[in-house]
Amino acid sequence: MKIGLCGLGTVGGGTFNLLQKNKDEIAARCGMVIDIVQVATRDPNPACELGDIDCTDDAMKVADDASIDVLVELIGGTGLAKELILRAIGNGKHVVTANKALIAEHGSEIFELAKEKGVTVAFEAGVAGGIPVIKALREGLAANNINWLAGIINGTGNFILTEMRDKGRTFADVLTEAQALGYAEADPTFDVEGIDAAHKLTILASVAFGIPLQFDRAYTEGISEISPQDVKYAEEFGYRIKHLGITKRLPHGIELRVHPALIPDHHLIAKVDGVMNAVVIDGDAVGQTLYYGAGAGDMATASAVVADLIDIARARNQGSNVGVPSLGHEDDQLNDYLVVSVDEISCAFYLRLLVQDQPGVLARIATILSDHAINIESITQKESDLVNGLIPMILLTHEVPEKSMNHAIKAIEALEEVVEPVRRIRVADLR
Amino acid sequence: MKIGLCGLGTVGGGTFNLLQKNKDEIAARCGMVIDIVQVATRDPNPACELGDIDCTDDAMKVADDASIDVLVELIGGTGLAKELILRAIGNGKHVVTANKALIAEHGSEIFELAKEKGVTVAFEAGVAGGIPVIKALREGLAANNINWLAGIINGTGNFILTEMRDKGRTFADVLTEAQALGYAEADPTFDVEGIDAAHKLTILASVAFGIPLQFDRAYTEGISEISPQDVKYAEEFGYRIKHLGITKRLPHGIELRVHPALIPDHHLIAKVDGVMNAVVIDGDAVGQTLYYGAGAGDMATASAVVADLIDIARARNQGSNVGVPSLGHEDDQLNDYLVVSVDEISCAFYLRLLVQDQPGVLARIATILSDHAINIESITQKESDLVNGLIPMILLTHEVPEKSMNHAIKAIEALEEVVEPVRRIRVADLR
Repeated sequence: MKIGLCGLGTVGGGTFNLLQKNKDEIAARCGMVIDIVQVATRDPNPACELGDIDCTDDAMKVADDASIDVLVELIGGTGLAKELILRAIGNGKHVVTANKALIAEHGSEIFELAKEKGVTVAFEAGVAGGIPVIKALREGLAANNINWLAGIINGTGNFILTEMRDKGRTFADVLTEAQALGYAEADPTFDVEGIDAAHKLTILASVAFGIPLQFDRAYTEGISEISPQDVKYAEEFGYRIKHLGITKRLPHGIELRVHPALIPDHHLIAKVDGVMNAVVIDGDAVGQTLYYGAGAGDMATASAVVADLIDIARARNQGSNVGVPSLGHEDDQLNDYLVVSVDEISCAFYLRLLVQDQPGVLARIATILSDHAINIESITQKESDLVNGLIPMILLTHEVPEKSMNHAIKAIEALEEVVEPVRRIRVADLR
Repeated sequence: MKIGLCGLGTVGGGTFNLLQKNKDEIAARCGMVIDIVQVATRDPNPACELGDIDCTDDAMKVADDASIDVLVELIGGTGLAKELILRAIGNGKHVVTANKALIAEHGSEIFELAKEKGVTVAFEAGVAGGIPVIKALREGLAANNINWLAGIINGTGNFILTEMRDKGRTFADVLTEAQALGYAEADPTFDVEGIDAAHKLTILASVAFGIPLQFDRAYTEGISEISPQDVKYAEEFGYRIKHLGITKRLPHGIELRVHPALIPDHHLIAKVDGVMNAVVIDGDAVGQTLYYGAGAGDMATASAVVADLIDIARARNQGSNVGVPSLGHEDDQLNDYLVVSVDEISCAFYLRLLVQDQPGVLARIATILSDHAINIESITQKESDLVNGLIPMILLTHEVPEKSMNHAIKAIEALEEVVEPVRRIRVADLR
């Protein structure tokens, strides 16, 4: 099978080297040699020995080369990459990509053309790096109605939260270190504000529920407002704070949200630390399963890219041109559930208030919550953290509609004894 | 696609009910209805409403029924089940089974006939219940040379060890409870002596390394000798004791062993508790990934059975009769690595000795270990557990050949101050 590799950066270089290194094992597994016949890159990668492989700086040439069976797109971005992929599909080539942004935002258009042309577009490497979670959802758990899934799917954010917990450091402090270590970009918005995670979650949701990609309807909230205090208090109540992507099937639609969340510390995913990723999937037959591994890195991501190539090779070996449908459902069998607004979800909340240390404040706050039909699980004033007559108050509520919580918080913030905006973090009980 | 379901016990009943319950979702995913047209059982299952589905007590009838595309074998055992599967394959039917014993002991013969007849034999449900770990190894991680894998693949054993740790109970005490709860069989040998785990590990090793099934060469050691003391001491040194199946590629062969093991308590698999299963896989590109979920239960196991059926349906949908090769490698590309004897492996050890509380004992033991070129990581006498002049001594060694350890233990046991056989547990560092 002849492939053209577009992009020779971190993942492109890893893919190039993995295909060379494990050539024999790969051939033994799929019954044919996977041959890189052309590489497109504007910057040569010193880690890759191209030898006599044809190299161009014009990726479009790869899309137009009739000798190539599969185009591997590892350029990134949604401009040239999109044009390139559509051109390759138009020319009847299979496509393998690690480009989550492109699939999350333009996947529907891409899959439609692929369907028309009878080729496969594979994107395992786009979600959770080397963890074969797309395959698990689409094939391994295919007998299940998926109830929900929740994932730590951004390594940068998880590294920051892990350091904050382990060492009591602030967000800003750890971010600076992560940037120095190369875990975080100079502009960290994409990672820490949840956009990258929302791209991945959008894809996971579509494969889980067989729904159209709806990235523009995803709710995203970052971790930059999480304080070491929150991490410490959460821990005292038996929780860890993680940046979670959550998608859930409701009777009337789908939840699709990325935000910091308190997770019970006895749940396995609460123990996933550092740059590692993990996804918990709840299926109606199998119950909860969890998938853990490296969510980024040259060779880990290349592992997923090459697995997709092997899938295509194996199908070709059996005389078939396309494998499992992109979203795990036959194209005429997709569901039309819409992603609901975050106002329509319900969950438990952690609230942190800074209040004047006076009698009656707790009662007034409890009354406001009661007026909004919000049940309190626990309410604690942190005497030990009393400073200048101001005391932190921590509340854990039962499950409550987001809308009621918004109204209650407004009313609480209007109290004159409440001196700061209320800090609110959702609880994910993962049951 | 028409299937015949042989066996209507726990897993059979679950499979029957799952195919009914999720009929629409399954059809949406594989593009065809999976129809049970015949059931073979000697005992009706009150949880299953057969309606007008043809029911027989003679499973062979199903194997011979020309209208059936896939035979699902959920009878268990290696007698009738083997005959049934070979007959079905001989008649050109695909086979899906959850029968780990049969695959581990007779898989080679079965796969050979399947190859000849051009049909698929699928067995995801045989290993780790609902966790799609065979698929992960065979497809999701297909780009990797697998270095090793280690799994908690027997829920009964893990339940017992978890209870022993959480509550300081003895093995015998917990086993009795597990039997009452239905987690353990009346004859628990299969589970607690590691035979069931060895069946599963044999299959995992063959898929991971592309080697013939070699159940008869697996080393198995049970957990019945583990004492609450060992659990407690291991914990003090930063370890948990788990019953692990481990298989590893050596330069000259394959390790294949099931035994209790100390695992560093910061490793995610150390935190897998109760009846849950998990497998860690170390691949040369992806690094470590972990797969976690229910390893048994009617619906969880049915999830894997039906996923295999969906794979077959999808391949048929693409006009192909067989999917990925049974052991993940093309049949002429299997490796011929042999499983090595346990005497040829090396690992670190935990040793518990009961010795007379006298000066010089520690020195004599340290000298014996030194004479056998065994490096000691730590040596501790448990003053607090001194009883009647006898004191427990706990040793942790560095990695050492099993053979050297055997000789050293013999020499230690010959010391007159050593009053009990040495208790030895291997350490799995999982690095």
